[in-house]
Amino acid sequence: VTLVPSRAQRFPFFAPGAGLASGFRRIVGIMHGYTEDKDAYLRRLRKVEGQVRGLQRMVEEDVYCIDVLTQVAAVTRALQAVALGLLEDHLGHCVTSAIEQGGPDAQAKIAEAAQAISRLVKS
Amino acid sequence: VTLVPSRAQRFPFFAPGAGLASGFRRIVGIMHGYTEDKDAYLRRLRKVEGQVRGLQRMVEEDVYCIDVLTQVAAVTRALQAVALGLLEDHLGHCVTSAIEQGGPDAQAKIAEAAQAISRLVKS
Amino acid sequence: VTLVPSRAQRFPFFAPGAGLASGFRRIVGIMHGYTEDKDAYLRRLRKVEGQVRGLQRMVEEDVYCIDVLTQVAAVTRALQAVALGLLEDHLGHCVTSAIEQGGPDAQAKIAEAAQAISRLVKS
Amino acid sequence: VTLVPSRAQRFPFFAPGAGLASGFRRIVGIMHGYTEDKDAYLRRLRKVEGQVRGLQRMVEEDVYCIDVLTQVAAVTRALQAVALGLLEDHLGHCVTSAIEQGGPDAQAKIAEAAQAISRLVKS
Repeated sequence: VTLVPSRAQRFPFFAPGAGLASGFRRIVGIMHGYTEDKDAYLRRLRKVEGQVRGLQRMVEEDVYCIDVLTQVAAVTRALQAVALGLLEDHLGHCVTSAIEQGGPDAQAKIAEAAQAISRLVKS
Repeated sequence: VTLVPSRAQRFPFFAPGAGLASGFRRIVGIMHGYTEDKDAYLRRLRKVEGQVRGLQRMVEEDVYCIDVLTQVAAVTRALQAVALGLLEDHLGHCVTSAIEQGGPDAQAKIAEAAQAISRLVKS
Repeated sequence: VTLVPSRAQRFPFFAPGAGLASGFRRIVGIMHGYTEDKDAYLRRLRKVEGQVRGLQRMVEEDVYCIDVLTQVAAVTRALQAVALGLLEDHLGHCVTSAIEQGGPDAQAKIAEAAQAISRLVKS
Repeated sequence: VTLVPSRAQRFPFFAPGAGLASGFRRIVGIMHGYTEDKDAYLRRLRKVEGQVRGLQRMVEEDVYCIDVLTQVAAVTRALQAVALGLLEDHLGHCVTSAIEQGGPDAQAKIAEAAQAISRLVKS
């Protein structure tokens, strides 16, 4: 007997995220696009956190404005790289799964991804 | 007797920033563009740090990719707003002082500011 | 007999684009993501062309720098909107088809789309 | 006798731009930041116009979406380079003149430039 995961098993239900700011969808018991690389993403975000603390130190120590700005641009690029990684993983997992399943859900996922891309481009 | 600050008094000398990553110019005993608003900038940067920690929590708790991306865009915008504030303060103080003093230093400051703007636009 | 289009029929072959700058892939006899909305895209691009000619007129007539810059930002946004539209259509057609077909081609299409998104975000 | 140009002579009055879309400030009889490089800016803008017509040809000839997107990104970068050039010239001429004159006009010019930079960063 081959057990094929049902749509319900393969697709997450959305549960209110306990411990999260309300409004975020926490996915219970399912992998996301970024789940495989979760540790790598956490490392990158901790590095970004360190860079932001570095910015605070620069302001506290009266570092020259232009040098602060150069570092702000570096942090922004690091965040953008995280976003682009998350987006590619999202396309390769969540959007791909929805398209493989077919139906209106696929179109909704693509529209949702397009809106996220638009927010990235405009941010 | 009117005491006019000399150029040496009004313009900072650049000292190697003790306690800073090498390469940053720490200005000794002089105000910068952002010095007056230093506390406000530190508050904003601490808020950004909190947002970045929030991103880590979202990844740890497997929040849906698109919601993580929306937050990344929000953090990027917050950083950009800090950068635009620093830049306006820099134009209003450092660049203005250099132009008031005149000479080649003024042109150098404008070229330097233009390069910082270019990095911001491209980041 | 149900005729199912073969992979060769459904997927375009890439032919050197006659009449095009070398290096662009012209697709022969197949629809793209944007083909359905081709006229709308052409109208938008002709409007962008008119805006760029308007910029030239502004420079010729010595319009105030800041007003020229405001218009440049408007043209950039119009171009970005075209790009975001093309990208959404691309995801909804070309990438969707590749995923429905499955195989390594799907992954290649997603990586290619992710690179295009990265170029957009960084431009 | 040294003739120093009066403020009225050195600073332009703003006249309604004949032949321009209403709302733009045409400067009569005065040089702008970009005036010296006017021909270079016009050449660059005509090149951008050619690139936009190239985009139309690509859409008409059904060039592959991703290749169109790559070209859109190139045009956006060309426009941004024009904007950054205009901005640097503006800082080096109009803003510098206002600061040399001193007074509230200088602060207004810096605030105006900062807003233009913000629009560029967000576009």
